[in-house]
Amino acid sequence: MKSMHELGEDEVVRRLLAQLPPAPHDLRVGPGDDCAVVPFSRTQWQLLKTDAIIEGVHFLRGENFRRVGWKAIARVVSDFAAMGGMARWFLVTMSIPPSYTIDELEALYQGMADCAAAHQASIVGGETTGVSSPAPLGISIAATGVVKKSQLVLRSTAQRGDVIFITGKLGGSLAGRHLDFLPRVRESQWLTQHRFATAMMDLSDGLAKDLPRLAMASSVGFQIDLSALPCHDGCSPHQALNDGEDYELLFTVSPSRARSLQRKWPLAFPGIPLTCIGHIVEKDQSMQLRGGWDHFAHP
Amino acid sequence: MKSMHELGEDEVVRRLLAQLPPAPHDLRVGPGDDCAVVPFSRTQWQLLKTDAIIEGVHFLRGENFRRVGWKAIARVVSDFAAMGGMARWFLVTMSIPPSYTIDELEALYQGMADCAAAHQASIVGGETTGVSSPAPLGISIAATGVVKKSQLVLRSTAQRGDVIFITGKLGGSLAGRHLDFLPRVRESQWLTQHRFATAMMDLSDGLAKDLPRLAMASSVGFQIDLSALPCHDGCSPHQALNDGEDYELLFTVSPSRARSLQRKWPLAFPGIPLTCIGHIVEKDQSMQLRGGWDHFAHP
Repeated sequence: MKSMHELGEDEVVRRLLAQLPPAPHDLRVGPGDDCAVVPFSRTQWQLLKTDAIIEGVHFLRGENFRRVGWKAIARVVSDFAAMGGMARWFLVTMSIPPSYTIDELEALYQGMADCAAAHQASIVGGETTGVSSPAPLGISIAATGVVKKSQLVLRSTAQRGDVIFITGKLGGSLAGRHLDFLPRVRESQWLTQHRFATAMMDLSDGLAKDLPRLAMASSVGFQIDLSALPCHDGCSPHQALNDGEDYELLFTVSPSRARSLQRKWPLAFPGIPLTCIGHIVEKDQSMQLRGGWDHFAHP
Repeated sequence: MKSMHELGEDEVVRRLLAQLPPAPHDLRVGPGDDCAVVPFSRTQWQLLKTDAIIEGVHFLRGENFRRVGWKAIARVVSDFAAMGGMARWFLVTMSIPPSYTIDELEALYQGMADCAAAHQASIVGGETTGVSSPAPLGISIAATGVVKKSQLVLRSTAQRGDVIFITGKLGGSLAGRHLDFLPRVRESQWLTQHRFATAMMDLSDGLAKDLPRLAMASSVGFQIDLSALPCHDGCSPHQALNDGEDYELLFTVSPSRARSLQRKWPLAFPGIPLTCIGHIVEKDQSMQLRGGWDHFAHP
């Protein structure tokens, strides 16, 4: 039998989801996109998301725990932004090894509360469970958000010919940026209010991993210009492709609207790069990317 | 500085919640009850809950994983029932050590899907993360549910003079019952539709731990008759008090309605015991109970 490593994250998830019965008719989006999308009101969908960060994988014991707490919440805010939505309510589940001090956990909670408040959201509950050493600290976030039905954007709706854009710069996040990034909520609201994005997701596992996911979800392919990638200072295109934890928006735009976007963006977001990196093609004409972050390959 | 063990679970939670800003005005119930209660529609509240179960604490590696999956979902269904509500959408986060096989995880997912379907609920997403050995398997469940505003019952609304009831029998759950119990959803719906329960919670950490929590949340005390506790076959009253994982309903009833409840219950639920175990008194006249399950004392 193949190990989890050999199967890889995407195949493990596929095999597990195959155990579920058919999705109910009122589910707008089920497993596979950034968030589940379920009925809420006449004009809004509700977004549901869970996300775990674990000591040794997403942060180290020596970090400033206030920054770790910020990151735990900001990752989910970024997931909601990736669909045009806003976060609302958070629940926090922690499994705590006995070696942790109450001071470290209080700092963690302060960071989480700061990030929630900065996005007009609230932590409203959770659960704590003790685990025996030498287990790592685990923080699992669950959140609800809302998105206007007119602003919902999925990763599965890119079309052949669409132009591929990314916000900001990529690479080198592990030097520190991964702990105190500002999720692209304003940018996402603007893009979806103006109906620019035909498909969108946030870059958490690296462009080399996430762009193929967007393409696969949309049943299309892509061609990108690696020399066009906007790299953070001191980063190579290889790092920009593979490092991950960028939390920038990756989105596609209909070719008829790409020029309008490029004209309006600098007025709306001066100083924030917007880069056209390529375009969507038929599946069988796609270039291949390998790399990025596999949650089972690097435990 | 005191360790997490010395502080105890309730004090750790209190210290962490003190880091949060004041609750927003539209939050009906925040941290501290079984679930958070947030706005949903004109006639319904939404219930939000997370719950983690961890290998070595809540189940052992050798268990039938289909039963472990059932338990993971059923615990949350029970939490919703404890407030008069029903589960709707589930998200599942797993942190998976490399030693687990895909077969074990598939069985786990089947058990979760079975339990969700049995309660007209669905698993709609989640996240998997690899962790390095020797970490335990961690399963974190997040769920939303709904409760009619007219049926919401909290643990914080017991009144002096109320009569204390429990459903079913207590004790000895670890012999196996903790893995395939049926949450008391029908009973909860009936109790709340008929407005019998003045306060309610489910028994997960043992009566000795949970009854004082209900009393503290309600700012009251209790007197119970230990010889009246309905014990599972072969269990002592000590086990009934302390074992935990009973997933029965603990609730209070106004004295003027207790007799009506005792008359109607056997007709509605033949074969399911309903036991009056005592009554609510002023805080300073309370008896004391010690014991039950502390998540930091037994990691």
